[in-house]
Amino acid sequence: MAFGRDSGITRRPVVRLGAPPRTGAVESREADRDDVAVEEPLEIRVAGDPLAITMRTPGADRELALGFLHAEGVIRALDDVGSVAHCGRPGDEGFGNVIDVLPGAGVVLAPERVAGTRRGTLTTAACGVCGRLTIEDLIARCAPVADDARIEATALARFIRSMRDRQALFARTGGVHAAALFAAAAADAPRGEAPQPDDAPLFVREDVGRHNAVDKLVGALLFARALPARGRALIVSGRTSFEIVQKAAVAGIPIVASVSAPSSLAIDLAARMNVTLVAFLRGESMSVYSAAERIIATRA
Amino acid sequence: MAFGRDSGITRRPVVRLGAPPRTGAVESREADRDDVAVEEPLEIRVAGDPLAITMRTPGADRELALGFLHAEGVIRALDDVGSVAHCGRPGDEGFGNVIDVLPGAGVVLAPERVAGTRRGTLTTAACGVCGRLTIEDLIARCAPVADDARIEATALARFIRSMRDRQALFARTGGVHAAALFAAAAADAPRGEAPQPDDAPLFVREDVGRHNAVDKLVGALLFARALPARGRALIVSGRTSFEIVQKAAVAGIPIVASVSAPSSLAIDLAARMNVTLVAFLRGESMSVYSAAERIIATRA
Repeated sequence: MAFGRDSGITRRPVVRLGAPPRTGAVESREADRDDVAVEEPLEIRVAGDPLAITMRTPGADRELALGFLHAEGVIRALDDVGSVAHCGRPGDEGFGNVIDVLPGAGVVLAPERVAGTRRGTLTTAACGVCGRLTIEDLIARCAPVADDARIEATALARFIRSMRDRQALFARTGGVHAAALFAAAAADAPRGEAPQPDDAPLFVREDVGRHNAVDKLVGALLFARALPARGRALIVSGRTSFEIVQKAAVAGIPIVASVSAPSSLAIDLAARMNVTLVAFLRGESMSVYSAAERIIATRA
Repeated sequence: MAFGRDSGITRRPVVRLGAPPRTGAVESREADRDDVAVEEPLEIRVAGDPLAITMRTPGADRELALGFLHAEGVIRALDDVGSVAHCGRPGDEGFGNVIDVLPGAGVVLAPERVAGTRRGTLTTAACGVCGRLTIEDLIARCAPVADDARIEATALARFIRSMRDRQALFARTGGVHAAALFAAAAADAPRGEAPQPDDAPLFVREDVGRHNAVDKLVGALLFARALPARGRALIVSGRTSFEIVQKAAVAGIPIVASVSAPSSLAIDLAARMNVTLVAFLRGESMSVYSAAERIIATRA
């Protein structure tokens, strides 16, 4: 498991039957080796105390840890962080799979506020467990996204293609999700004259976990001191769940779009947090579930 | 959020732009209502103590709770369970989103053994956090799957189609994963004369979470007293992660197959637990990453 780890890709033996789409071979049985996405656990600690374990693709661990803590409200800006580093020494068993976040000078981090809305064991049962209370809890610590960004529907279609072109791990393994951040059109551009946004993403991150890809991206924004992410559009490769919208809303991202379906709670949270939620983005057709005024229809 | 909850489907307003694939409409902007998959939190308690919260699609909550506890090693058979029921009364705020599992007569359940390898907060940091230790921990409490079932590659292709035909929530929402269990060919059938297994699944379960769909299915097996699930093949709709293979291995399922990619840790665990792991199952082509002797190639 050691080789190729840093790249997020490793190799495993495989027997191919039939005609695998990726090789075009027609042999009925072919032994080979295959590129696969690395999945390993990362334990996130705050000042030495274990807080969470996530199964992730190694790489960008520091971004992942800070992005996760940001979404959970444990940190709000880079100044809250003194250091973030893997525990132990290179060469130790399991090195690279434990990361510790120390508070900045004079900062007290309160990880006990992590309410555990995700699957996993709990340190607190304080979290309201109906959907409405889950949303109220988030709104109590985070204002709705006030951002008059808008974007042409056709630009979102281009962003999807642009992200796909940059999913390096996915291209080799087929086994990772991606999150990418793009600039939306300038909010104050005259309607009809909105400048074409740059189709190159500001950030792209990949991971076996959809949520991790978004955490890594938000962590990158934290390091760049680019939060809140005004005027940005987040493209995600998978379905849009509550947690994806939560992370976007806390990061101040006004537009979230996906090729796949949203859940009920994702829609409800997006509506309450004034996040534009676009789903089933295929070619130039799409479904907009909240804050649709930010999307400029191509053929109005 | 109350209406349609039991069915796992609710409705939300949507603005469609372009020509949505599902309607064929060509209007550039159309307001409508859309079926969406329900996502709500479920808090799982053991004898009153909160153990985990998972974001799930309501329905089959009792199966989900028991399947989750089975994968975690908290329960091993139905006799370990005295009762499993939602807390509170119908009509209460949040009713249906907390479920409590009470031990059977004379049984002591030890939920503290839940090691938290999944994302979420921790009650214990006992879990080894490198991949190798994660696997060793599982092997210590669960023997490799000794099952000489085998199956024609073509049968797996039929199973995929059979599962798709029964994904009722997916057909309406596009937003849920599925897990389905099928009978493999009889292990003692002479080679070349293996009877065609029945293409109707024994169980199909759907959920916004891949892991929940498998937990619900294993919970159904528990209620049917059909564990270990010898001679069965599990088909899952999404990528195959460590956790999916873990749940299958603990349930004694010898064959796991998916249309999508596996992770490195899923492959490593499948190899150690002697689970046959099939991925990229498309038409009659597929990749087999472990225990390939259970798969009978169509054109040998």
